[in-house]
Amino acid sequence: MKARSDRMRRMGNTVAFVPTMGFLHEGHLKLLKEGRKRGDDLVLSIFVNPTQFGPNEDLDAYPRNLERDLALAEKEGVDVVFTPDKQMLYGERFQTYVQLEHLPNHLCGISRPVHFRGVATVVTKLFNIVKPHVAVFGEKDFQQLAVIRQMVRDLDFDIEIVGIPTVREYDGLAMSSRNTNLSPEQRTSGLSLHKSLLQSFEHIQRGEKKSSAIIDAASELIQSFPETQIDYITICDPDTLDDVDIIDGPVVMALAVKIGKTRLIDNMILKP
Amino acid sequence: MKARSDRMRRMGNTVAFVPTMGFLHEGHLKLLKEGRKRGDDLVLSIFVNPTQFGPNEDLDAYPRNLERDLALAEKEGVDVVFTPDKQMLYGERFQTYVQLEHLPNHLCGISRPVHFRGVATVVTKLFNIVKPHVAVFGEKDFQQLAVIRQMVRDLDFDIEIVGIPTVREYDGLAMSSRNTNLSPEQRTSGLSLHKSLLQSFEHIQRGEKKSSAIIDAASELIQSFPETQIDYITICDPDTLDDVDIIDGPVVMALAVKIGKTRLIDNMILKP
Repeated sequence: MKARSDRMRRMGNTVAFVPTMGFLHEGHLKLLKEGRKRGDDLVLSIFVNPTQFGPNEDLDAYPRNLERDLALAEKEGVDVVFTPDKQMLYGERFQTYVQLEHLPNHLCGISRPVHFRGVATVVTKLFNIVKPHVAVFGEKDFQQLAVIRQMVRDLDFDIEIVGIPTVREYDGLAMSSRNTNLSPEQRTSGLSLHKSLLQSFEHIQRGEKKSSAIIDAASELIQSFPETQIDYITICDPDTLDDVDIIDGPVVMALAVKIGKTRLIDNMILKP
Repeated sequence: MKARSDRMRRMGNTVAFVPTMGFLHEGHLKLLKEGRKRGDDLVLSIFVNPTQFGPNEDLDAYPRNLERDLALAEKEGVDVVFTPDKQMLYGERFQTYVQLEHLPNHLCGISRPVHFRGVATVVTKLFNIVKPHVAVFGEKDFQQLAVIRQMVRDLDFDIEIVGIPTVREYDGLAMSSRNTNLSPEQRTSGLSLHKSLLQSFEHIQRGEKKSSAIIDAASELIQSFPETQIDYITICDPDTLDDVDIIDGPVVMALAVKIGKTRLIDNMILKP
C-alpha cells in the first residue's frame, strides 16, 4: 500500500482516501463519490479498529460483510480497497497512541473514554500507510471529524480533510452500519434522535436561546419512545465542543441514545 | 517545507533528515555526513522543542548559536535548514500528543516524565512536514532512539531510522551541546560517566554477570568525582529497556548524572 501510494504521488496523481469500518451504506457511498471527484486514485480502507472500542462495547457485534462491500466499492470506481488485519496494524509490543487533551472530554468521549484515542491512532496509522492528499469523513460522526481536523492541524499532516453532510433514510434516520442491529420497533424509536433535532431547530426559529430549555424538550420527546436510554444531549461550540448556554451564534446540537443495546448518534448545526 | 519535500519526492530524490536542537557539535556533524551519503536532498532542522522540557528543566539555559550552526550546515552540504519557531509548531489550542505506554517508564523517562511525549510529538510533526525517506539520530540518546524506532513501527511511518554511534572528545566525554555549560572542574567530573562504562566493560570481560555488582562499582567510581549526583545507572534490555539482573546476552548500560546543574547522559552496549 505504501509503495503503491508513493508511485501514484510520483506520477503526479492525487490520492483520495475514505477510511471506514465497512458494512457500507449510502452514507459511505457519498464519501466515496466525493473521493472519486477529488482524487485521481481512490483508496477505501475497511478495518473494524479494536482500539476504538471499550471493553464493554460492541466490537464483536459490529456488522461485517466484506463481499458486499467489495462489490459496492467496485461500483463506485474505487481503485484500491485496503483491508489490513488486526495483527498487521497492532503487532507485538504495540504501545504508541495519538491522544488529544481536550476534544475527547466531551460528548461521546465521556461514555467512551478510550474511543477517540483509538480513532486518532488508527487514522494516523492509515494516513501514514495510504499517504493521501485528501481524506473524506462523514459529519454524522461530528466529534470524530473535529478530532481528526484538530489532529491534522496539530501534527502537521499535509492532508486536506473533507466533511460530508449526514445521509438519512427517507424518514430522517441517520444512516449507520449499526442500524442493521435494530428491530422494527427499535427502528421507530431510533427516529426520535432526528425528530428531537428538528424540534430543537423549530424552537430556535421561534426565538428560544436557552440551551437548557431546548435540551429538556428534546429529552422529553426521546423518552416518549420505547426502549430509549439517553447517553447525552448537548448544545456546544462546533470547534471546541464546549457547552453553550445561551445560543447567539452557530452551535452544534449532538446526542447519543441507546435503543436497546444499540447506541445511535446524530447531530445538527443550529443557528439563531 | 512540505511543498519542497513533495517536489523532491516527485523528482525521485531521496530526502534525508537530521532533526536537532542546534548548537551543533561533532556528533551532529557525523549525523549530517551520514545523511549526506544517504540522501539526494539533506534537510537539517533546528528547533529547541519546549514540550520535551519539564517545568524545572533547562529549556532557557539550553545553548543556542544559529549563525554558527548555519555555517557548519553549509560546510556539510546541507540543502535546507528548517528552523520553525514555537508559535509555528504549537499554535493556539494545540492539544495532540504522541505517547508511548512502556518505553518512557525507564531510564530518563522516570526523572523526566513529559520528555518522551514531547520528543515523540515533535518528531511526528517534523516527519509530517519534512517527509523524509530516511532520518538519522545519535545513539548517545539511546532511549530517544528506542522510542523513535518503536513509534515509527507502531504508527507505520514509511521512514528508515538510522542510529549513529556516539562521538566522544579525545578523553572519552560524550559530545553534547550541554557540555558547554560545564566549568573546567565539572568537565573533569563529566569524564566519570565514560570511565564507569569502561570499568563495567572490563568487569564483564573478567566474568562478572551480576548487574547489581557492576552498577555498585560504577556508582562508587562516579561518586568519587566532585559535584556528581547520580540520576540513574541501569543495565537493561536494548529493545524493551527492562532491567536485566543477570547478563547473559547483549545489554545496554545507560546512566544519567548531574554535574552541578548540568545533566549528562551516556551509554554503552555490553556483551558477556
